[in-house]
Formats: sequence, C-alpha cells, structure tokens
Amino acid sequence: MNVAIFGFGTVGQSVAKLLLQKHADRLRLTHVFNRGVARKKVDWMPGQVVWTENANEVFNARPDIVVELMGGVGPALDIIRVALEAGASVVTANKQVIAHHGRELTALARQHGAELRFEGSVAGGIPVLRAIEDGLSADSLVRVAGVVNGTSTHILSRMEQGRTFADALSEAQSLGFAEADPSDDLTGRDAAAKLAILSATALNRPIAPNDISCRSIASIEPIDFRYAGELQCTIRQVAWADTAAGKCHVAAAVRPALVSHRSPLARVTSNQNVVTVQGEFGGETAFYGRGAGGDATAVAVVSDLLAIVGQGSAVLQGMPASARFNAEARDPKRYAMRGFMCPQNSVTADYSAPHYVRFTVRDRPGIIAAVADAFARQHISINAVLQHPGWPADRLPFVMTLEVCDEARLDRAVAEINALDFHVQAPVVLPIFEGVV
Amino acid sequence: MNVAIFGFGTVGQSVAKLLLQKHADRLRLTHVFNRGVARKKVDWMPGQVVWTENANEVFNARPDIVVELMGGVGPALDIIRVALEAGASVVTANKQVIAHHGRELTALARQHGAELRFEGSVAGGIPVLRAIEDGLSADSLVRVAGVVNGTSTHILSRMEQGRTFADALSEAQSLGFAEADPSDDLTGRDAAAKLAILSATALNRPIAPNDISCRSIASIEPIDFRYAGELQCTIRQVAWADTAAGKCHVAAAVRPALVSHRSPLARVTSNQNVVTVQGEFGGETAFYGRGAGGDATAVAVVSDLLAIVGQGSAVLQGMPASARFNAEARDPKRYAMRGFMCPQNSVTADYSAPHYVRFTVRDRPGIIAAVADAFARQHISINAVLQHPGWPADRLPFVMTLEVCDEARLDRAVAEINALDFHVQAPVVLPIFEGVV
Repeated sequence: MNVAIFGFGTVGQSVAKLLLQKHADRLRLTHVFNRGVARKKVDWMPGQVVWTENANEVFNARPDIVVELMGGVGPALDIIRVALEAGASVVTANKQVIAHHGRELTALARQHGAELRFEGSVAGGIPVLRAIEDGLSADSLVRVAGVVNGTSTHILSRMEQGRTFADALSEAQSLGFAEADPSDDLTGRDAAAKLAILSATALNRPIAPNDISCRSIASIEPIDFRYAGELQCTIRQVAWADTAAGKCHVAAAVRPALVSHRSPLARVTSNQNVVTVQGEFGGETAFYGRGAGGDATAVAVVSDLLAIVGQGSAVLQGMPASARFNAEARDPKRYAMRGFMCPQNSVTADYSAPHYVRFTVRDRPGIIAAVADAFARQHISINAVLQHPGWPADRLPFVMTLEVCDEARLDRAVAEINALDFHVQAPVVLPIFEGVV
Repeated sequence: MNVAIFGFGTVGQSVAKLLLQKHADRLRLTHVFNRGVARKKVDWMPGQVVWTENANEVFNARPDIVVELMGGVGPALDIIRVALEAGASVVTANKQVIAHHGRELTALARQHGAELRFEGSVAGGIPVLRAIEDGLSADSLVRVAGVVNGTSTHILSRMEQGRTFADALSEAQSLGFAEADPSDDLTGRDAAAKLAILSATALNRPIAPNDISCRSIASIEPIDFRYAGELQCTIRQVAWADTAAGKCHVAAAVRPALVSHRSPLARVTSNQNVVTVQGEFGGETAFYGRGAGGDATAVAVVSDLLAIVGQGSAVLQGMPASARFNAEARDPKRYAMRGFMCPQNSVTADYSAPHYVRFTVRDRPGIIAAVADAFARQHISINAVLQHPGWPADRLPFVMTLEVCDEARLDRAVAEINALDFHVQAPVVLPIFEGVV
C-alpha cells in the first residue's frame, strides 16, 4: 500500500524511519509533504520518495493511506477531510483534530468507506486504544483515568524533589518538553483533549473537550508536596471520566490531585504516561509507557498502518473501499471509531472524593473554628488538620483533609471561607485519589 | 456462533455469565461439559444449554468455538486437539497446554483452518498478548519481564509487611490463592510456563518451559526485606526473557529478585500481575491488572471469542473454515499463534545484573576478607557491605551488594565462598532490577 506523510517534524521523521527500516515490504512511502519542504530533506530517504509542499500533488497520486502528523487543527483538519473524501484511509496522532472533530471525521470515513485510526493521539507509544478496543472488548468499562500531560508531570515530579514551580517549568521548556506557551499543559486543556478521545473510545461516550472542567496546576507549591508526603501521596495532573452520572451524562474533569503512592497514577515521572480503566467485570487495568517522543509515537502510528494493511490483506483486498467498509462495519466492535458513532454526551464535573485543602492565613484565634463551621454547614466532615511548625504567623499555611464530599458542595463551602478576612492567598483545593491497582 | 464450554469451575462460570449477560446476541452458549456435571448445575443457565459429561455429545453438535477451561494438561490437551481437528476454533486460558504444546496446537489449527486464542493463559485479565500483537506490532520487542505468579506476590508482599514466609504461605492457602501443593508457584515453574508463552508471542522466540532456569522464593527471609528497603527496593518473583543472547538464543529465567521501588515490577501486591516489554523503538511499556480471578480471566476469554466472531463477521463469514484461514493467514501479523510458528529457540540463564548476596555466618575475623577475595578472583566488584547491629555472633547476617556481573561468574564465586567453614546457612543470591518505567 502507498503511504503519504503530511508533516515531517520529529514524529514524521521517526515514522518514515520505522517504515523504511522494518516495514518496507508492506508499506511503500511515496510522498512527504511539509511547508518549506526543501529545508526538511534528509539523506536517508530513498530517491523515489517525492518531497512536496503541494498537497494536490500528493492527492493526485491517490495514496492508499494518508498519515497526518502536522499537529494543530487548521490545515491538518483539511488534509484529513480531503483524504477521507477521496477514499484514502487516514492515520493521525493529532489529539486536537480527533477530540474536536472525531465525530464528523468518523462519519466522513464511514461515508467514503475509509478507515480512520488515531492510536498516537493519546498517550504516545502506549497502545491503550487497541488494548481497550480489542483486549477488553468483552467488558463494559465504566471509568477511565490518566496522567497524560508530560509537561505537568515533569513539573510536578521535579517539585516533588524540591524545585519551585518556576524553576521546574523553565527546565521543562529548556528540555523541549514544554511549549514556549505552556498554558494548555498547565491549565489541563491538553489533557482534556486526550480525555475526550478516551471517553469516546473506552466508555463509548463522546464529549466535547471544551465542556470538560479543568483547573490549573499553577497553584501548587512545594509545601503541598510535603503535606502530600505525610499523607502517603504525591501530586499529579489527573484527567478522568466516569459513567456513574447516568445514561447520557459523563462526569469528567482535569485537576491537580493528591494521588496515593500506591496508585498507578503516582508512578509516572518525566514524559511517562499512565492510563487506567475500570471494567465492570475485569476490575482495574493500567497501561504505562512513553507518552511522547518521536519513536514511541511512531510505533503507535505504524501499528495503526499495519492494522489497516492487515484488514485489507485478506479477501477484502480486491473489494471497492465502500463495499469493504460496509462488510467490516457489520462488526459493531469496530476499532476506535465506534465510540465516536455514539450520541454526544453532556459532561458534568460532579464527583465525590476525599479532599485536601491548604489555607494560607494571617494567624489569629478562631480560624479553625470558622473554617470548620463553614464545612459543617455543607455537611462536610473534617478528617485531619495538619500544620507544620516554623512558619511566620502572618503567612501561616495549614491543611485540612476532608472525608468524601462532592465538589459542588465543597466549592460552596470554600467560597464562603474565602470571603473571610484572614487569607493571605486563595485556598488550594485538591481531590485525593487512592488507586486500586 | 455456537460456543461450548469445557470446565465449569470459577472461570467457566464467569465466562458463562459474561456471555449470557452481555454477548448473547453474538455468541450462543450451547453446551457445558464437566466431569460429574450434575453437581455443577446452576439455576441461572438458560434451559436450552446442554449439561453433559460426554465430550462426544458436544463434538457431535459441531460447535463453532470450544472454550477449554479445565486446566492441567491431560484431558484438556485431548479436547483441544479434537476440537481443532474438527475445524472448531479454540479459546483457552490453559497456560500449561499452551506453554508445552503451543507449537503443535498452532500447527494443528493452521492445518484445519481454525483459530487458537489464549489471552487468558497469561496475566489473567490484562490484555497483554493483544496489546503486544496489535498495538505494538510496528515495534521489535527485545525483552519481556513480569511478575505473574499471584501466590509468590502475595507471600512476598506480606513478608514485606513483617510476616514470616510460613505465615504468609498458610494465609495464601486459606484465602484460596495458593494450591494445597504450592511448589510450582514457589519454585517458579508456574511463572516459567507463562514466560514461555510471553517469549513466543512478544519476542517470536518459542522456548520450552522446562528449559527455563528457576530459583525458589523459599530462601527469602524477613531480614531480606529490611536490607532491600535500605536499598530502595522490595523483593518479587520476576520472570524475564530477552533476545540479547543472539539470533537463536533467548536468555530467560525466573528468580526472586530485588526490584527498585521505582520499577513497575515492585508495584504489584496480592493477585495483581504486571508485564513490561521493551521495544527497540517504543521503549518500555507496562501493563498492570488482575492476574487471576474468574471475572478478570473471563474478560480475556470472551474478548478472544469476540475477536473470532469479528474475524468471521465480515465477508469471511460464508467461507469454509480452511479457505477463511488461508485468506487471513496471508497476514504474517496473525495474532498470538504467529510466535509459535517460529523455530524453537534454545534458552540460557546468562544475564548480567547488579546482585544482592546475604551471608549468615558464625562471626570471626577475616570473613569479609575471604569473601571479598573470592569475588575479586572472579573479577566481581563489591559495591557495599551492609550489616545491622544486634544479631548474635554465632548467627550473624550481613549483605554484600555487587556491581553488574554475570550469573555464571557469580555462581562460581558463591560456590567457592560456600565451601568456607563460617556459614550457618547457604548464601541467598538475588539479582537487583532497576526499572525504566
């Protein structure tokens, strides 16, 4: 099958190398598209591969599969649409395109008898979509959670070692983990896009990424890691979705959270990702690996290509694309795209968990009483009050841990407490997750 | 498709429930075979399902798929052979049958155009074979390692909490984790069977399970966990195979080992399993989940059934089985069975790692010197000597940690040291693994 690559950055180059080195017998790379392609040329590319910055030149050659690795939404979305409309199958690692346009593109692929695969769009090299779709196909998954943003994990795991937020962020930027503008990473918007894809594929509940409630990790300070440590926890940016909210609802959110050292969510550092799923029958299963990097993502992309070749290699090969698709589509377990065929779900951030709240106050008698009173009015039980000695009385941090409570109720209590006059800065509120695996 | 279940124990019952509750539209349970079947009958089984202890009655009804869940080798192997010879596909969770007879059964399945699937035979509910075969298909895997024996993990994680070996073992037996005769669990033979399957499927290197070198966990004492803790490690029974030994060789072994708290191998307790794979391109990926239990294993078994239905659901449906197989078999990436089609490999236990050695001695001057001298003669470097105060001089434990050395060389040094006259018991030798994930 003929393969054209759009986008020749880090991942594009790794995909080309992996194709040429290991899979040239089954997949023939014919075109590399990139803007300003001249500066992209490499000496290891076979001579017959066409370098171009003209997308029409690629489509006129009618590639069997288009690999979209340009990133971002604008031109990438156009390329994918044009490819699918021409009946070419598409493999992409573009989380924004799939999270925001997965339903439209799935419908387009169906209509034109093409395949659309996107393993690389979530958790880089971890084959989590395939494992969920095939290996756990017999189960009904009810919850998915993950640590899927490398920049946040890098920053938080460095803060765990005593660095400040600002230090850890500039290190992540100089190492190339974090973008010049890291706001999507810090606010959770990047993780929300991946969560939208996981919700569709693992839970069959497509949700709009912009509907997912996010909170930034920027409020976390080194002292939070000290208190977290006392609670046998660390802090990570956690994205989760579960179906407990009812038939047409998904509870989903991205939050900095305390995660138990025993939880799989605690065990990632640097550019590692973890995704855990909870099945009605099989319990919790967790998948770890490299969440980013050209080579790891290339494994996901090329495994998707091989799946398309495999699908086409049997008797289906000779059939026209649309007939082939209809034949295959009788199988309701169709990989990944299946989730996006379900009706779109509404999202709430309703969830219940134990919580950690750090207050920073100008000390005076009655503060604990006032705070405890506000929690009591919302029927929230206090579990423990933690306070390290040695802080100045005009900027005194202390922590309360709360029994399981729902976030909406907690927000009301915290808003009320926040209106009191003893705060030096706004309280930091983090859910506490205890893992099962 | 019509499905017959052979073996109605814990897993068989979970498979039947999952089939009936979730997948009755695609898979029709027609027969349940068990010896002394009368005592097995349950009230939730639909009336049209035939209960029988006569295998011929099942085969005469020509089931499309036979699910073998009897365990052990003897009759289970016969049932699988008869099924495949009749052109029925087979799903099994039987590690002994696949580890010892996977090559023969794969050949038989090919010959009769049938499928053979065995996701449930390794790591219970974790879809590790599917994830490897599909999601990582583009990569070349060079190493697989796992903690895959629940009894050992239960015993070692309880010893970590201060229990003695004997206490932890009898607890595991009373909880139903460990067999009345737990010797296969403790010696590593159980893990070796699973490792043989992983070597075939992940590395395409089939190996005979009896050729895998094993060492028992029975020599581990509570004091080893104290020293391991000082080294930021715990102790687990680790099974691993890697292809570094050369083209036709696999280095594979099962050993109690020190594993870094940072390693994925350290993070399992009770009946959890973990399998990690190292890819040439994708780096390390780890899969965690329930390694045992009826419901978790049932998810693996029924997902295998759905894969067979999916394979058959398209235009392939109407074809005779042998033609269908030939059509599909053009795809060299054929699930799981592929590995067993490779030539059988020879196994060595050659590996290099840092090591932990605990000596228990009647103290006298010169012991450290004598031990150090023996290591020096084998060119093995000592890293540290650890000795806690408070032990009697006539039964004094101390630990040496050694720089990376190969096991054969280490065995020679330890044999020489063991011949000296100051030992109260034989030295305990454990490799030290530091995880990547």
